[in-house]
Amino acid sequence: MRYEGCMASLSDDQVHELDRWFRAANYLAVGQIYLLDNPLLERPLVREDIKPRLLGHWGTTPGLNLVWTHLNRLIRERDAEAIVLCGPGHGGPAAVANAWLEGTYSEVFPAVSWDKEGMGLLFRQFSFPGGIPSHVAPETPGSIHEGGELGYVLSHAYGAAMDNPELLVAAVIGDGEFETGPLAASWHANKFVDPVHDGAVLPILSLNGWKIANPTIPARIHRDELESLLRGYGHHVITVEGDEPADVHRQMAAAMDEAHAMVREIWRAAREEGDLERRPWPMILLVTPKGWTGPAHVDGKPVEGTWRAHQVPLAGTRDNDEHRAQLEEWLRSYRPVELFAADGRPVEQIVGQAPVGTRRMSANPHANGGLLKRPLRLRDWRASAVEVERPGGSIHEPTRVLGRYLIDVVRDNDATFRIFGPDETASNRLDAVYEVTDKVWAADILDVDEHLARSGRVMEILSEHTCQGWLEGYLLTGRHGLFSCYEAFIHIVDSMLNQHAKWLKTTRDIEWRPPIASLNYLLSSHVWRQDHNGFSHQDPGFIDHVVNKKAEVVRVYLPPDTNTLLSTMAHCLQSEHYVNVVVSGKQPSFDWLDAEQADLHCARGLGIWDWASNDGGDPDVVVAAAGDVPTLEALAAVSLLREHLPDLRVRFVNVVDLMRLQDEREHPHGMGDREFDSVFTTDTPTVFAYHGYPWLIHRLTYRRTNHDNIHVRGYKEEGTTTTPFDMVMMNDIDRYHLVMDVIDRVPGLASRAGGVRQLMVDTRRRARQWTRTHGDDLPEVRDWTWDASAGPARGASP
Amino acid sequence: MRYEGCMASLSDDQVHELDRWFRAANYLAVGQIYLLDNPLLERPLVREDIKPRLLGHWGTTPGLNLVWTHLNRLIRERDAEAIVLCGPGHGGPAAVANAWLEGTYSEVFPAVSWDKEGMGLLFRQFSFPGGIPSHVAPETPGSIHEGGELGYVLSHAYGAAMDNPELLVAAVIGDGEFETGPLAASWHANKFVDPVHDGAVLPILSLNGWKIANPTIPARIHRDELESLLRGYGHHVITVEGDEPADVHRQMAAAMDEAHAMVREIWRAAREEGDLERRPWPMILLVTPKGWTGPAHVDGKPVEGTWRAHQVPLAGTRDNDEHRAQLEEWLRSYRPVELFAADGRPVEQIVGQAPVGTRRMSANPHANGGLLKRPLRLRDWRASAVEVERPGGSIHEPTRVLGRYLIDVVRDNDATFRIFGPDETASNRLDAVYEVTDKVWAADILDVDEHLARSGRVMEILSEHTCQGWLEGYLLTGRHGLFSCYEAFIHIVDSMLNQHAKWLKTTRDIEWRPPIASLNYLLSSHVWRQDHNGFSHQDPGFIDHVVNKKAEVVRVYLPPDTNTLLSTMAHCLQSEHYVNVVVSGKQPSFDWLDAEQADLHCARGLGIWDWASNDGGDPDVVVAAAGDVPTLEALAAVSLLREHLPDLRVRFVNVVDLMRLQDEREHPHGMGDREFDSVFTTDTPTVFAYHGYPWLIHRLTYRRTNHDNIHVRGYKEEGTTTTPFDMVMMNDIDRYHLVMDVIDRVPGLASRAGGVRQLMVDTRRRARQWTRTHGDDLPEVRDWTWDASAGPARGASP
Ligand SMILES: Cc1ncc(C[n+]2csc(CCOP(=O)(O)OP(=O)(O)O)c2C)c(N)n1
Ligand SMILES: Cc1ncc(C[n+]2csc(CCOP(=O)(O)OP(=O)(O)O)c2C)c(N)n1
Ligand SMILES: [Mg+2]
Ligand SMILES: [Mg+2]
Repeated sequence: MRYEGCMASLSDDQVHELDRWFRAANYLAVGQIYLLDNPLLERPLVREDIKPRLLGHWGTTPGLNLVWTHLNRLIRERDAEAIVLCGPGHGGPAAVANAWLEGTYSEVFPAVSWDKEGMGLLFRQFSFPGGIPSHVAPETPGSIHEGGELGYVLSHAYGAAMDNPELLVAAVIGDGEFETGPLAASWHANKFVDPVHDGAVLPILSLNGWKIANPTIPARIHRDELESLLRGYGHHVITVEGDEPADVHRQMAAAMDEAHAMVREIWRAAREEGDLERRPWPMILLVTPKGWTGPAHVDGKPVEGTWRAHQVPLAGTRDNDEHRAQLEEWLRSYRPVELFAADGRPVEQIVGQAPVGTRRMSANPHANGGLLKRPLRLRDWRASAVEVERPGGSIHEPTRVLGRYLIDVVRDNDATFRIFGPDETASNRLDAVYEVTDKVWAADILDVDEHLARSGRVMEILSEHTCQGWLEGYLLTGRHGLFSCYEAFIHIVDSMLNQHAKWLKTTRDIEWRPPIASLNYLLSSHVWRQDHNGFSHQDPGFIDHVVNKKAEVVRVYLPPDTNTLLSTMAHCLQSEHYVNVVVSGKQPSFDWLDAEQADLHCARGLGIWDWASNDGGDPDVVVAAAGDVPTLEALAAVSLLREHLPDLRVRFVNVVDLMRLQDEREHPHGMGDREFDSVFTTDTPTVFAYHGYPWLIHRLTYRRTNHDNIHVRGYKEEGTTTTPFDMVMMNDIDRYHLVMDVIDRVPGLASRAGGVRQLMVDTRRRARQWTRTHGDDLPEVRDWTWDASAGPARGASP
Repeated sequence: MRYEGCMASLSDDQVHELDRWFRAANYLAVGQIYLLDNPLLERPLVREDIKPRLLGHWGTTPGLNLVWTHLNRLIRERDAEAIVLCGPGHGGPAAVANAWLEGTYSEVFPAVSWDKEGMGLLFRQFSFPGGIPSHVAPETPGSIHEGGELGYVLSHAYGAAMDNPELLVAAVIGDGEFETGPLAASWHANKFVDPVHDGAVLPILSLNGWKIANPTIPARIHRDELESLLRGYGHHVITVEGDEPADVHRQMAAAMDEAHAMVREIWRAAREEGDLERRPWPMILLVTPKGWTGPAHVDGKPVEGTWRAHQVPLAGTRDNDEHRAQLEEWLRSYRPVELFAADGRPVEQIVGQAPVGTRRMSANPHANGGLLKRPLRLRDWRASAVEVERPGGSIHEPTRVLGRYLIDVVRDNDATFRIFGPDETASNRLDAVYEVTDKVWAADILDVDEHLARSGRVMEILSEHTCQGWLEGYLLTGRHGLFSCYEAFIHIVDSMLNQHAKWLKTTRDIEWRPPIASLNYLLSSHVWRQDHNGFSHQDPGFIDHVVNKKAEVVRVYLPPDTNTLLSTMAHCLQSEHYVNVVVSGKQPSFDWLDAEQADLHCARGLGIWDWASNDGGDPDVVVAAAGDVPTLEALAAVSLLREHLPDLRVRFVNVVDLMRLQDEREHPHGMGDREFDSVFTTDTPTVFAYHGYPWLIHRLTYRRTNHDNIHVRGYKEEGTTTTPFDMVMMNDIDRYHLVMDVIDRVPGLASRAGGVRQLMVDTRRRARQWTRTHGDDLPEVRDWTWDASAGPARGASP
């Protein structure tokens, strides 16, 4: 191997010292799982020293400790800058133990001091009410990765490495986690690494052989099959295998050195010689027993090296004397007297092994992105606004115009902002950005390709999971980004969104973690315009999913036209520590508001559109809309009402910030009741055309005085490949149906407007028929325009 | 290669005939995308012959047609029984074209007859309002795979192959789809194939080089890297590569023969010689250009073999004369006169190539599982019921008892029922089934392993996606199953659930597709009992997600104890064509109902529990609960009320079938308003303890008279690693808080019960404090039992 020259050959002393750290970390991990008291084993363990409830995961922990030990050596010896992400983050005790050994834990949580008392607290608080979670979590210094839901460690790691050209991001992958889809896809992230501007990811596959109750696939296929797979993923595989610590330390040190040398060589060749050919990146295949160094047998059954080591190997330790004795033996096997001074502090030989200051992985600012985050440089979106002379007087493709706005964002933030998408950036019409940047592609590039390059700001892989993981990793390390996706398929990352939202929620209360940039979604190709895909591509439910998360971290926007989209997106890109969901169409559609109006409307979040209202402050009906297609249909309904029922006093309301509908006690954006009532009144029938599943509007408004009068139309799970207008008709949210709804709901109108109602029924029929014959929408629908001269009919509302 | 002897060496004539089918299918596909009329090109194409809206995907279509052509040859020549699943199912025209060529289409849709008129209709209806979707869809004969959302074709295929020992399931994988996580994980499904009892999956990777707007990763890594990857996945790779049809036909026929021979050899060795060693399964790497045989250039830009061929290569064909001429040239390049007789029927040489009857892939009953489905053999669950002498008098782990019930299910349906889980079957305490069956494992088995075997009924892989895909494939081919999963992580398959629910909804209206078995979820390790995992594992939102789907296909059950769980699950396992979500704890918990009562309660879906009520038909307050932990807290609250406010007339209601809460117009299980009012009254304050996010209860009940009086407690996104009772306290759904809610809501009680309220506040404080000190719950909480002697206090309610 080319890199052998760079590889460590350790003296016995060096091995001994490395093992000392490893033993200390293991000791502290076991202590966390079991001990309430007697942290230094100054006396034999008694019942009261043991926690009443034993909650934690031992099995994966020694592997994590080994990795930490040797990354520290690499950082010190080779002057590397590294962070580590723990895929099997259920091994929380490991990350906590190492952070305490490095001194960081006590810096961040002074009560958990760097002494015996602190060690006692460290043990006690773990998995304990009012203490810390059992997993690597936001509360863990040095972590950007929770590791509760398995599968995302590699994509997070690659996101962290982007635009951090000196950073090595080690990513420990559980061999069970290896089986998950998101993890499997994310191996290919190495085809998107820019060796000049990005750092490197070092995957470490922790092949401990087992999951919770089963062996793992990679442990039970032939080794050459596994290596073939890993090579096929684009890696040079360095194997470390054994169960004798000294031997494993030697192998591991050499493996780290080799990996690091390979990375440096790739960087050098790219940066100094401009050699941008993709080469295999190193990875480590770490084969050690699950629960290594723990009890070999318990109650006569093998534990170390089996699935039985996954959680707490010795059960009932409080009351079972034998198990307690075994625990004590286990703890003493690490020889605590060689690890900690009498006052509980780690001995000098351990302290000296920790890197210094922010080079400690537990204190590295890259693992606390808010520290590094700089505001995005954003120009005034109004410079990109489209001119709107009168409502509905012009037509634009909203996302295409947004693409033009993003040109500057990309240019002005060329190392801190990226756009992510599953092969949909152009389909979602953001392709203007290719005027100033490219899609990153480290694999082969052919002449026929367009906008592919070794460097760029756009990341496209057909894996929503990888896009999401990349972006999360990028944000968590202090940068900014945008994920553009088809609306229906964003459900693919529902569970990842959950975890990220939980991270945001938790870190709001952790003062040493400053806020990070928001996670921004642009959902286009939405439910109403799946003209050539149909039912499988129609689902607006991501909004509902997001709204279940803590109100303080989620926002949902439904800009009705191009300028409101620009205003919304500019706002979202500047915001901090939220999940922002923006849903917008890409098809040509009417502009309703000019820049000034859009600015005001978006600042308000919802408002009455005077020019579409003729209620003179006292409406007979409120017609409301949220979403671009619903706004179109609702305005068309208003124009029908004007034509056929000119006396009816109609107020038109548009909602862009969905959270405004909610009570101010429920959501920070929520409106006070009085303000809400001033818009929706306390007693006027309201016909509400909404982009998604109708009940969400009820949920958001059910405490409002006028709630019983709010009648919502939305998507009711009816769809197929058809015309745009047929699609809205299938869900009864079309203009004609909205007019019928108005007639049915305004007291006294039913009898008076029977003729109009019948006309609506007939027109719907005619419209459907027309599509069946011509394959296209009725001309009067397709060519409809808002007659701006007609309104406001009688005195605008306030 | 060992199998060369079995491989076809085709005569020129044979090649010519295969190509004839291929050309016919391509012709029919292009016709579907473009033509309104003039199907046989009897006259030059004119404007009116072209559809006004061109909606479809050409790029992937020729690859699918090639596969179909050669699978038909295999079926005929080698007497194989095969079905095909199209991963890139956006190539809908291909599946439809082949089904029409096979005659099936006209059998199923007589209007689309097997002649010129039918061909005209076939073309017109595609992607046309009132016609058929553009993708392979439920409407497509021969399909069990929609292919809209990419990533699931392999797991579906493996599910279809299980327990179908003679079936070959070909699965075409797009090279873009290849990048998705679910697809990447599902390659490893081959470690779970039982060569004796299962059929085989033949993966065909369609390496056409492109996605929508980008090249694909597998097309742009070195070929040996790709092959290394595929070998690592456990496959023998047979490559077919070219762009000259005759050459490709020769290669493809040989590849199919080789693959088939390998499969037969694995089967033979396993079945005749008992040789169960895992061997590489064959797969085909098919390298042909995207949009093969289509326009090479359009408007001077390369199209065939590029991403530009993805959808409709020639735009504006109605009005652009040049494009229309190019379209005509393209269509004529297939030489339609050699393909169809003057009456439009396929010529004899084509008809003769189709397999016969149900051997046609478009007519194979495995692709229409309802035809094959037999009811599950189920014994009376009451035989497995636990004895319950009095409410709360005994304790069981509900899922553990369910495991015992499943023993018989597994034994009595040993080729038609499987249990799927992501390494959680034992963790969810269903492990009793291992008394009669094993976990399937085709990889290496060691002595230390337990319950792993080459055959079995339990499928465990750490991939929720693969579990879901397997089960869907198994159900869609007419079998039965159960997916047991941690509640929080079932969100991982949200989007897969969407697609399956859409399939169920659509097929309800397709009369030639009889119903299939329900998709049954058992969600355990739920939000309230994540004692050793914490926040990342806490999310009850899957219920909300499911309830957004069409009411007629979804059901949600929250059995409060062991016997109700048995009753519910027995009901679900028998049901057809639903998605059933059952949420149940696995921790020891009280039994409330004996078998008889459980039976009645579950039949009712919700009901008043007399023994916990003292309202005498006229309650001051209704205390309601849905979910096991909420039921416990609500009953404990009732007992506190009895103790401290003995005069208060309390009605206790338990909800097991959540859909009962809804209006009968909204859901088939919904209650009529009168019935609802008779339980919840029209005016009594109701305190409702609910398992999940509280607003769902509002959503389900918002039309009820008493809705404004319903006050719901549930999960409000507060969680961590802590004790069970601390967890309910964090979310204000604990017994003490429920009592406070009652006091706050029953008119007049606030002043009278001030002391009790204060006691509740204090007890909560004391309970929290206790956990902080002892790491466990307050003994009076932990050891609480229902005092059955105390009630019903004053005359049970009716
Ligand atoms: C997506 C997901 N599914 C299921 C689980 C439940 N679970 C927790 S740990 C574990 C086994 C993990 O095995 P492995 O990745 O090998 O980790 P290690 O052996 O290092 O503990 C499982 C299945 C989970 N955390 N995430
Ligand atoms: C999960 C998912 N994400 C995105 C899309 C949008 N999409 C439709 S087709 C396609 C490209 C598919 O490429 P490939 O699998 O290679 O198919 P083919 O080239 O045969 O058309 C994409 C990204 C999708 N259908 N599913
Ligand atoms: Mg493992
Ligand atoms: Mg492709």
